[in-house]
Amino acid sequence: MSIADQLAERIVATEYAQIPADAVSWAKAGILDTVGVTLAGADQDCARMSAAALGIAAAPGPCLVFGGERRVDPLSAALINGTAAHALDYDDCNNSMGGHPSAPILPALFALGEQHGKNGRDVLTAYIAGFEVEAKIGRAVNLHHYEKGWHPTATMGVFGSAAACAKLLGLDAQRTATALSIAASFSSGVKSNFGSMVKPLHVGHCSRNGIYASLLAREGFSSGADVFEHKQGFLNVFNGPGNYDVARMFDAWGEPYDVVKPGIGFKQYPCCASTHPGIDCMLELHKKHALRADQVEMIESWTHRRRLEHTNRPNPRSALDAKFSVQYTLARALIHGFVSIDHFEGDNWKDPAANALLKKVKAAIYTDAQFPPDNHFGAEVRVTLKDGRVVSTKVDQAYGRNSSVPLTPEMLKTKFFDCSARILPHERIERLYEAIQGFEDLSSISQMTALIDTSQIVGKRLAVG
Amino acid sequence: MSIADQLAERIVATEYAQIPADAVSWAKAGILDTVGVTLAGADQDCARMSAAALGIAAAPGPCLVFGGERRVDPLSAALINGTAAHALDYDDCNNSMGGHPSAPILPALFALGEQHGKNGRDVLTAYIAGFEVEAKIGRAVNLHHYEKGWHPTATMGVFGSAAACAKLLGLDAQRTATALSIAASFSSGVKSNFGSMVKPLHVGHCSRNGIYASLLAREGFSSGADVFEHKQGFLNVFNGPGNYDVARMFDAWGEPYDVVKPGIGFKQYPCCASTHPGIDCMLELHKKHALRADQVEMIESWTHRRRLEHTNRPNPRSALDAKFSVQYTLARALIHGFVSIDHFEGDNWKDPAANALLKKVKAAIYTDAQFPPDNHFGAEVRVTLKDGRVVSTKVDQAYGRNSSVPLTPEMLKTKFFDCSARILPHERIERLYEAIQGFEDLSSISQMTALIDTSQIVGKRLAVG
Repeated sequence: MSIADQLAERIVATEYAQIPADAVSWAKAGILDTVGVTLAGADQDCARMSAAALGIAAAPGPCLVFGGERRVDPLSAALINGTAAHALDYDDCNNSMGGHPSAPILPALFALGEQHGKNGRDVLTAYIAGFEVEAKIGRAVNLHHYEKGWHPTATMGVFGSAAACAKLLGLDAQRTATALSIAASFSSGVKSNFGSMVKPLHVGHCSRNGIYASLLAREGFSSGADVFEHKQGFLNVFNGPGNYDVARMFDAWGEPYDVVKPGIGFKQYPCCASTHPGIDCMLELHKKHALRADQVEMIESWTHRRRLEHTNRPNPRSALDAKFSVQYTLARALIHGFVSIDHFEGDNWKDPAANALLKKVKAAIYTDAQFPPDNHFGAEVRVTLKDGRVVSTKVDQAYGRNSSVPLTPEMLKTKFFDCSARILPHERIERLYEAIQGFEDLSSISQMTALIDTSQIVGKRLAVG
Repeated sequence: MSIADQLAERIVATEYAQIPADAVSWAKAGILDTVGVTLAGADQDCARMSAAALGIAAAPGPCLVFGGERRVDPLSAALINGTAAHALDYDDCNNSMGGHPSAPILPALFALGEQHGKNGRDVLTAYIAGFEVEAKIGRAVNLHHYEKGWHPTATMGVFGSAAACAKLLGLDAQRTATALSIAASFSSGVKSNFGSMVKPLHVGHCSRNGIYASLLAREGFSSGADVFEHKQGFLNVFNGPGNYDVARMFDAWGEPYDVVKPGIGFKQYPCCASTHPGIDCMLELHKKHALRADQVEMIESWTHRRRLEHTNRPNPRSALDAKFSVQYTLARALIHGFVSIDHFEGDNWKDPAANALLKKVKAAIYTDAQFPPDNHFGAEVRVTLKDGRVVSTKVDQAYGRNSSVPLTPEMLKTKFFDCSARILPHERIERLYEAIQGFEDLSSISQMTALIDTSQIVGKRLAVG
């Protein structure tokens, strides 16, 4: 059997009833997080422009463009929503894939699910199968693939999207293999476009292409028989002979599902991941000691040398600068008890209260006495109060980084509400949150997207006209 | 200046008034040939399915789907027509690119040109600029790129399409560079999908993506600044360090235009290129001596060892077999005085008259006495008649292979009529032929596509409903 056939056999065999409860639970967390970051990203330039550039090619259809009330065809919806999902680089991560697992898949499934009236379990099953495909292919080709310059979120994501859509459409094994084989010829995305709008566009593009591959396969399209392992196939062309290990694709298939282990990494804050463990410390101190900014004399922060290198920015001069400033992010955490997207919007980086705190923050590299030398992910924060009290705490790594230090449901909910509030009123977000908590009971995916659609909201704020 | 900037500068500087007459003349030949093969390919399964799979995503619009009267948005039109253009693998070739230069570009330009009311000179200028871009990038990355397993028609074609569309839209240098940089992240297509419908799909996909890259750039999208030469950029990721030569991209830019030299190779017959020099010989004998099949006692054919290997098929057993049979193709050439698409359709390979001739054909490898050892492209044919006469001729290479042995206008016209007759009535083809002969005088590209549109044809044969 070819690799495509072996993958297809496993995709077809995936059934909701046999998926362990923890996989479903993680998948729902992934859905919650992705819906939130897609709403948060919907008014970013990359998402707006990807929609505008489609022009009349975004045909009227049943599929919601997140951030407003416009409904288009499924391919266009996946392209636009996929781009929005990665617009803030705030979406979830997976170590097997070496990228962002949900943003390529879910926009495709939501769109196709709306078109075909699929229910929550259909979408969950397809999502878990698609996630498994992109992650397990990632295991076979990484880390070489990533280091060479491919963007795995896109180059693997197209397989995740194609697999998930083939599953949602109920394609048989042969057509599922064809969808994956077509996807191999759509796989693209180079890292030299990182730091630009093209990075999130990669995600919308692969999400759209995954749908199209599955639809072509459904039509009876033909493809090469050994597209992955052929001497001029995906593995040799993208990675080169000797730079991949096919066995790793299948040796742990579904046992456990990759969505469970290594699992989904969630970004809790909309700023550079290297600032996250310090923020975790500050929020813990804030909560435990009911800290107020005006009580504080001095803040000391220690992170790993490699992290401090790009986050030691005591005087940020732009919103982007602020996203990478350990000083600014700690100030925001202390003042508000959370770190929000709003803190990096427009000119908010100039906020006087936050800037007044900047000079009180001393950022340093931690010593071997503080953390073992092989821990690059820790942080310690010590706050000296004006009344002489000193409080401190440390974390070995940021919450959410992987499933061994999961975000609590409360943390995920806080992020979801912060993200969604950019588009939806609070009452609507509450209902949407509940709908996703009961995702497996949705009789139609449209029950969820109806809550995202802004057409019935009075005084709404539209991201996409 | 980055590579993208240098390419963009040249694209923007390309002006119709400064393009040499021979470049325009070759471009018009490329347009004629591409329109013909697109019509011939329009009813192939790959084109029909690529349209059907789009479903509602193919939005109503001003752009003709070749083969019928349906009009859709420009992205969908480029995708469908681009797939049709390469469906029969009968479209033109270019040695710099190592692929098919026109099929990625022209469907995009026709679609965008119809939408924006562009004239013949606009399209010619954009086509020549796009052709130059894909060919000159091809010079920098081939032959390594091709041999590694990339499909240059697609991986280079997306740059050709993006460049041509940027030119047609009149983008400035910065936005043109952005279009090319976005295209680098859309570049895709592996050879392990050769021999399947995915091969022509590559062409439609890249043609569509080139348009989209140009439209995103027009919107003000951002991209990486050094997408080609970045250490994780197109050149290193696709070819690998040391496997390309950037100097070759620019050292002969426009002097001459690649469309002139090495030029466009045209396939005169809808069958394996290795059979073409033999067919040329037979057609010459047929014409010169007014040969009739019933006069013939024996046909002797000599080709290069490498060619005969896959074309020595004295008893073809399928249409595909017939396309690769030197015996069958020579029989058809003798009987009809031409070789037509119809000869490979359906069960026509079983034609009794053609099959009766098969056993009279002796196919052999030619000796050093017949051709110099370094000529792999020649053929000699000798026909012995029942009355004892013997006639023979030889060619060093097939007509049309490159611009040093060009197809005559008459040969191009014959192919064009054969291709177009699958969709259009003769009178319409005559008018279409004349319109393309005067392409530079078209005040709108729609004057040409109106002649391809079948809506006003009585008793029409529709390829695409």
